[in-house]
Amino acid sequence: MTSEIKQLQQQLAKFAADRNWEQFHSPKNLAMALSGEVGELTEIFQWLTPEQSELLPEAKKAHLEKEMADVMMYLLRLADKCDIDLMAACQNKLIKNEQKYPVDKCFGSAKKYNEL
Amino acid sequence: MTSEIKQLQQQLAKFAADRNWEQFHSPKNLAMALSGEVGELTEIFQWLTPEQSELLPEAKKAHLEKEMADVMMYLLRLADKCDIDLMAACQNKLIKNEQKYPVDKCFGSAKKYNEL
Amino acid sequence: MTSEIKQLQQQLAKFAADRNWEQFHSPKNLAMALSGEVGELTEIFQWLTPEQSELLPEAKKAHLEKEMADVMMYLLRLADKCDIDLMAACQNKLIKNEQKYPVDKCFGSAKKYNEL
Amino acid sequence: MTSEIKQLQQQLAKFAADRNWEQFHSPKNLAMALSGEVGELTEIFQWLTPEQSELLPEAKKAHLEKEMADVMMYLLRLADKCDIDLMAACQNKLIKNEQKYPVDKCFGSAKKYNEL
Repeated sequence: MTSEIKQLQQQLAKFAADRNWEQFHSPKNLAMALSGEVGELTEIFQWLTPEQSELLPEAKKAHLEKEMADVMMYLLRLADKCDIDLMAACQNKLIKNEQKYPVDKCFGSAKKYNEL
Repeated sequence: MTSEIKQLQQQLAKFAADRNWEQFHSPKNLAMALSGEVGELTEIFQWLTPEQSELLPEAKKAHLEKEMADVMMYLLRLADKCDIDLMAACQNKLIKNEQKYPVDKCFGSAKKYNEL
Repeated sequence: MTSEIKQLQQQLAKFAADRNWEQFHSPKNLAMALSGEVGELTEIFQWLTPEQSELLPEAKKAHLEKEMADVMMYLLRLADKCDIDLMAACQNKLIKNEQKYPVDKCFGSAKKYNEL
Repeated sequence: MTSEIKQLQQQLAKFAADRNWEQFHSPKNLAMALSGEVGELTEIFQWLTPEQSELLPEAKKAHLEKEMADVMMYLLRLADKCDIDLMAACQNKLIKNEQKYPVDKCFGSAKKYNEL
């Protein structure tokens, strides 16, 4: 895992430990917290057209940054608690996705791999 | 941003471009895809007790790894498209959280900052 | 509450009781299950344009019907377990929304009430 | 469909039309709004134990009622826009679930039908 990500995970673990929050941070609870934050991120975009979402005004972009940070931090807490190397997991999944979505079969198509 | 994260973002951008998927990857759509993947992650934990969630059997942990990778990859696509430095956003949010949740006021409490 | 909704709640309670699933149906777990189903519903729409979402092909509409039913059924299970009259809650919320969103202030605007 | 549900759908359609909000209520956008509200509902439960979630204090129950109403109302807006009879969809899904989860195979088990 990248040292920056590992370092952030350690900062987040310390933040929780300092506040005696470990008791709340079961993977189940962290999954719920992650999902709640994604709900807040979703709200930013819900009434925007796809085109508007490409050109967020400054205030919305600042809001988005905060929500994305919350999502990322719960994701890293979860990875830490479940002893998952998130960057390695991404590389593994990317290899799988390359097999599931060969360029010639899915070019320009939004179909799921099992519908191709 | 960490070079590893930047590198992964570039891999993901290339993956999409190779498949002519840029047309689908508006921030709005990526937010929905992120939210869908978090739904799949949530399903892993929904019937588990908090205690069971601490000790995932190997198959569930492998499943979780895949779903976390999907969440991370859509989060990074979104960051890339919105030109957001996710690691910097996390450090900024962490500073805000330290102010919102001073140790002496929230020690051992799961209350929200506006309820403390 | 409408007798039809009450009747469906009772069907769902019996369905769970017959399978000895009451043990899994804490409000917390039902909230997660609800959230997981909404994730599946979201996936149906994620790559569609708003316009395409107005004109779902038959297969997608049938899929949507199933996911909406799943969402509704977990919502009713949750209402049942928490002793909440969902239809009354809607009427109460609708009155609040009328106060938060007076026609003359929010006509044609997607702003949140606290931004109006 | 029950007359009460149909009536509520009509109230919600009028609420939107009065505010010229039809333009925002594509099925895609309504799915996002639904998902955002479920995120808020999830937050209520995220740090509670399953046992605590069974015995919500009055303030949390009042909060839950509001969030459940929001979820229900967006679900009904979506049903209305997509011309889906939600109560019929539930009855159809319930029949399917009875086939997927026969009592003798899933008694006391939280496994998914394809793992039974």
